[in-house]
Amino acid sequence: MKTQLIALDWGTSSLRAYRLGAAGETLEERSLPLGIMQLDGSEAGFEHALDQACGDWQRASPEAPMIACGMIGSAQGWREARYVDAPLGAEELGASLHSIERSCGMPLWVVPGVIQRGDLPDVMRGEETQVFGLLDGDTDHGAPLLIGLPGSHSKWVTAEGGELTQFQTFMTGEVYQALLGHTILGRTAVVGDSFNTAAFERGLRVARSIEGLAGPLATIFSSRTLVLTGELSGEAQADYLSGLLIGHELAAMTCVHQPPPSQSIVLIGNSTLCARYLWALEYFGFESLRFAPEATAAGLWKIAAGAGLVPENPGEPYVRNHACH
Amino acid sequence: MKTQLIALDWGTSSLRAYRLGAAGETLEERSLPLGIMQLDGSEAGFEHALDQACGDWQRASPEAPMIACGMIGSAQGWREARYVDAPLGAEELGASLHSIERSCGMPLWVVPGVIQRGDLPDVMRGEETQVFGLLDGDTDHGAPLLIGLPGSHSKWVTAEGGELTQFQTFMTGEVYQALLGHTILGRTAVVGDSFNTAAFERGLRVARSIEGLAGPLATIFSSRTLVLTGELSGEAQADYLSGLLIGHELAAMTCVHQPPPSQSIVLIGNSTLCARYLWALEYFGFESLRFAPEATAAGLWKIAAGAGLVPENPGEPYVRNHACH
Repeated sequence: MKTQLIALDWGTSSLRAYRLGAAGETLEERSLPLGIMQLDGSEAGFEHALDQACGDWQRASPEAPMIACGMIGSAQGWREARYVDAPLGAEELGASLHSIERSCGMPLWVVPGVIQRGDLPDVMRGEETQVFGLLDGDTDHGAPLLIGLPGSHSKWVTAEGGELTQFQTFMTGEVYQALLGHTILGRTAVVGDSFNTAAFERGLRVARSIEGLAGPLATIFSSRTLVLTGELSGEAQADYLSGLLIGHELAAMTCVHQPPPSQSIVLIGNSTLCARYLWALEYFGFESLRFAPEATAAGLWKIAAGAGLVPENPGEPYVRNHACH
Repeated sequence: MKTQLIALDWGTSSLRAYRLGAAGETLEERSLPLGIMQLDGSEAGFEHALDQACGDWQRASPEAPMIACGMIGSAQGWREARYVDAPLGAEELGASLHSIERSCGMPLWVVPGVIQRGDLPDVMRGEETQVFGLLDGDTDHGAPLLIGLPGSHSKWVTAEGGELTQFQTFMTGEVYQALLGHTILGRTAVVGDSFNTAAFERGLRVARSIEGLAGPLATIFSSRTLVLTGELSGEAQADYLSGLLIGHELAAMTCVHQPPPSQSIVLIGNSTLCARYLWALEYFGFESLRFAPEATAAGLWKIAAGAGLVPENPGEPYVRNHACH
């Protein structure tokens, strides 16, 4: 099958490559441990990684455009692609692609990140592409949709009328790792494979209780003291801490945004982590929950279409138009 | 001057030794980097550290009793001294000393930690001694006193009628270190020597504002985004983050305990850190603030007196009574 677009999700720790066909369908997919933090930051390093990920696809289809989203466009990436302001639609991202000229003649188009200005500015890089991959022209013109993207930095995004209107970041995942890896809480935690749902739910309960008003800086200490007093096993500590932190995140998110229990919520991301968030959202009383599979390839296709790199309506006669800057 | 008591504040990172005279006055003081985490955990390691800290004092006054507080009595210390339940007075600590028998014949008496039981148990080791060192028989029978002990694990202690009645731990200091040292927030922070008071107060303001309702898991991300957008310098980031975290701690503490603005508050601890907390408490509207110098030696004297290791009323005839277990 002919390659219409080579789409890359190039983040901090990994590089995922998608070979997309004439209708945007995924023909082939690869994941390599070549995130920007694994590379030396040199031009040659990025070129080499790109060649490892999809050099063969390029040589087989030298006319196929290439597009990437994620931290590759950050100051620590290959070339900085400046943020575009929210609220915005996919076409604005498409109109703001940054190009990295390459010796082979075919540039790499980089999706800019999104910024929300204000007293506390917020930013994303990569999540915007997932959001637009999820939004469907047929269904996104109704009530506002709340989209959760759990991860090292969880994002809660509101979408309305096909636009990404606002968002908020919680550093929950990275804080969890730092607490277990680099504070006294890690001393008593015993790492295991199984998910202790009772411990996780206990953490949620505490975060949502009157004791939770003391906030995470206080409640996290109970993940140690409960083990010291024999009320929690070392094996259960990490899941209890996970429940506490996700619970505090949801308590804060619902306090700030006040979504009704009927609010439509979609989660995108790693299925194991999303399962925890779905559990937590149910515990917090939300009734309309959905998990969406990875949507980056679809988002990159949509943005590439907005930029004229691929046809909006596959099948129609198509003149490529690189209306990018 | 004759040594009446050898008093040790033996914590995680350091060992401080005090040679106290007949009235509990400090005759000599030493600080060594021999905290329990610097030692190998063996009997010989603890003995050797003790000898380095005060072997000469002991040989000069072999009859002087020795008492220690802090993490030396934890499961990771020399011997575990089990927690005593709050509320409690100094005499209950004195009646619950644990002894470590030593080959030289003179035991080391170890002050137990304090536990507050409940849904979220809380513990302290060492801070209880500072609290009792601070409490003065003449002045502690009035209104409840709120005592703040800033540190890796900040403690907020309520004392009334000479008793330690309740307390709460916030892991603020350790979380601050973990965030700067082991998350993306450290990437943009430039470490400097000067205290950027404007950045610190900006952090306090955010934590106390409507944006602060999103909680520390969210607001800490602004310490990065404000640098990315050029609204905060890398040099100011750490102090802004410090203000954010201390602000969230105080917001939570005041939310839970609801102290009136007239509440008498005393801070004990490192003067640099206490200066930040005093600044923050003023910002939060508290009017009756006091900084107390280090009170561990006085607390160890008081507890030793309660245990009959030294005279309650110096000058009176005194029969030593080792009523400990």
